[in-house]
Amino acid sequence: MTITITAFERSPDGGKGLARDTRVRWALEEVGQPYEVRFVSFRAMKEPAHLALHPFGQIPTYEEGDLALFETGSIVLHLAQRHAGLLPDDARARARAITWMFAAVNTIEPPILELVTARILERDKPWSAERLPLVEDRVRERLGQLSVRLGDADWLDGAFSAGDLMMASVLLRTRPSGILDEFPKLAAYVARGEARPAYERAFAAQFAVNGSKPPTG
Amino acid sequence: MTITITAFERSPDGGKGLARDTRVRWALEEVGQPYEVRFVSFRAMKEPAHLALHPFGQIPTYEEGDLALFETGSIVLHLAQRHAGLLPDDARARARAITWMFAAVNTIEPPILELVTARILERDKPWSAERLPLVEDRVRERLGQLSVRLGDADWLDGAFSAGDLMMASVLLRTRPSGILDEFPKLAAYVARGEARPAYERAFAAQFAVNGSKPPTG
Repeated sequence: MTITITAFERSPDGGKGLARDTRVRWALEEVGQPYEVRFVSFRAMKEPAHLALHPFGQIPTYEEGDLALFETGSIVLHLAQRHAGLLPDDARARARAITWMFAAVNTIEPPILELVTARILERDKPWSAERLPLVEDRVRERLGQLSVRLGDADWLDGAFSAGDLMMASVLLRTRPSGILDEFPKLAAYVARGEARPAYERAFAAQFAVNGSKPPTG
Repeated sequence: MTITITAFERSPDGGKGLARDTRVRWALEEVGQPYEVRFVSFRAMKEPAHLALHPFGQIPTYEEGDLALFETGSIVLHLAQRHAGLLPDDARARARAITWMFAAVNTIEPPILELVTARILERDKPWSAERLPLVEDRVRERLGQLSVRLGDADWLDGAFSAGDLMMASVLLRTRPSGILDEFPKLAAYVARGEARPAYERAFAAQFAVNGSKPPTG
């Protein structure tokens, strides 16, 4: 059955792979499923046809026959549960891998989203210079704890899993701020993710669309 | 096998049910699983024994035999996949319910967490009065979109599911700000959640611990 995802017609990051379709492309490549991409403009994202697929007017969405999903965590989990390659067979290890997926989106990503907001949306506000270090420190607190847990391991819990895919994708968003490089173990962890052939294919696919266009944000 | 969760020795909310153990208690009650609670102090949460269970030093955690989990989304999903009552049988409906779990924690909760930070941690900052309306508007944008999608339905996708459990739990955190009541459909949705016998039992259990102690926050 054909899988179709949506992605930005023109990603605000200019092809750095930080838009959320990259996570889904990566998962699709890891499990070896071909997919098609429908590109949507910022205007189209807020129109009824797209809102029917994604009530919050964002990308990516995922269509497979009459199944329609949104939320990268949900899409990646759906793929991981149906195809080999992203979740261990052992039930306990599987539950722990899913725990890392939720940790990525609910513990690590919220302060990172706040940092992105502070650095972009509130960049010109009078409080920006004084407040930004507070926001950065909240990101550092979480990354410090994560780095301790990862230690010298390659991945968060045994073999590479959907938990690592989501975590590395979320951590990538801290690279433009320079904070990722303050945590060498995490920077190396993200680099291990980027070195996976599936990630390289996913990155190249989004770059082919966005890399030649100047960033909009 | 005995299930043991952790909860605050003294919840900062003084028993309003906003601490995250309530979500897990609710799920346990919905699927009819008995559980024990180990209470942890703020100091103990940052000590090695607890950090081994929860690398970010928070509550709740979940232990069942030699399985140890954290992240409420992961714990609720684990329970929902192993016991009847929180996920539909149809594979597509199940994937959509899980989508709502991720929407709760990755789309709706991040701006709510930012609002909680603005209202509490940054309350005394010089920018607080000018910035707070911006943060509130970001919450309103998401709640407005969610309200449109919910429409006049009782639950987000057919019967009550783990997606509704997570979404109602997350929305509850907007009640102290007054924003929840600006969206009557969502306020009624949360009230439907609170009226479920399983929620009532979960709320009562945490209130028995926290309700008699003054809030700390």
